Amino acid sequence: MRISQLVEESGVSLPTVKFYLREGLLPSGASTGARSAEYGERHLRRLRVIKALTDVAGLPLARVKVIIGLIDRPGDDLMATLGAAIAALPPDPSPTGDYPRARAVLTRLGQVYDPDYPAVAQLEQSLLAAAQAGLGIDDDRIDAYGRIMRQLAEFDLDHLPLARERSAAVEHAVLGTALYEPVLLALRRLAHQQIAMERLDAADG
Amino acid sequence: MRISQLVEESGVSLPTVKFYLREGLLPSGASTGARSAEYGERHLRRLRVIKALTDVAGLPLARVKVIIGLIDRPGDDLMATLGAAIAALPPDPSPTGDYPRARAVLTRLGQVYDPDYPAVAQLEQSLLAAAQAGLGIDDDRIDAYGRIMRQLAEFDLDHLPLARERSAAVEHAVLGTALYEPVLLALRRLAHQQIAMERLDAADG
Repeated sequence: MRISQLVEESGVSLPTVKFYLREGLLPSGASTGARSAEYGERHLRRLRVIKALTDVAGLPLARVKVIIGLIDRPGDDLMATLGAAIAALPPDPSPTGDYPRARAVLTRLGQVYDPDYPAVAQLEQSLLAAAQAGLGIDDDRIDAYGRIMRQLAEFDLDHLPLARERSAAVEHAVLGTALYEPVLLALRRLAHQQIAMERLDAADG
Repeated sequence: MRISQLVEESGVSLPTVKFYLREGLLPSGASTGARSAEYGERHLRRLRVIKALTDVAGLPLARVKVIIGLIDRPGDDLMATLGAAIAALPPDPSPTGDYPRARAVLTRLGQVYDPDYPAVAQLEQSLLAAAQAGLGIDDDRIDAYGRIMRQLAEFDLDHLPLARERSAAVEHAVLGTALYEPVLLALRRLAHQQIAMERLDAADG
């Protein structure tokens, strides 16, 4: 397709598409003349990925570049690449070197504790915030949350699309994190309302 | 305790405490003289709630006021009050009047569909964002996510602290939403890494 059609199908403006081309976020099209090029599905897909990261996840362009760089050049260690890509997503916990609350929780859940995983700092800060607000998280709740989140993660990994390429796996992991997290939180809030209503009805009836 | 001790124990500065008193976010202490007052546990607790809402949930003060108002004057319809309080938390989906994707999902899950619940707009926007990024959510995933989030919500409602007062119930619902959501998302990211690693090890071994 021509660049005008790429603009139309993606909903991304022409100046923005040209900017992404200059910045290397969008690969060049196949040249079909001195001033024209042909674009395809992969260009459209790339624009959708950039849009999801900027508009939905709210990432600044510098972070989008990091992620696109990892998708384009995933390297040999897929786990390290996936970790780096997910780490570029919000939130941005500041590393503190020691994560006593997160360590206690992960040890309790029988999970590996690697302080270099940014999600460890994220867990530490969220546990600290809850504790400071006087909303402690007791062992029962940790066990339940850990078990339930593990079920969710098992489902996610069982249903990874067959990615023959590392690039596709990195792209899917980033989008699945950035885009499914808001779906899950909305479903939890709606389930709270649903169950509260069912229980009120049962109490009334 | 005196105001100086309140400042020390809460970690909130004296000018900020005075500002909250003027704005009615913090109730006055019991007067013990022309220029002194006595503060107690409920003042400390209130400061922790405000801190969680501003620092962790990132709420602007206008939203904090709405929530504190609902905690202080919860009204007769507890479900409506809870809904209004949760609705003051981020994200802020713009209501569009029609939520075809959310309606289909909630119907499929056998849940009540009330377009006035802000979480319905939140679900619609997150489903739309995923679809636009080419990351559709098929029925299998909806069923799994719905079932798993329902387990989580059942646990939450089974473990509500015994709230004799409506105010305490509203406060707990708001804090439990704002502070446990980040914990859950961190646990999901860590479970992904854990399971991916277990599977790689099993494949290597």
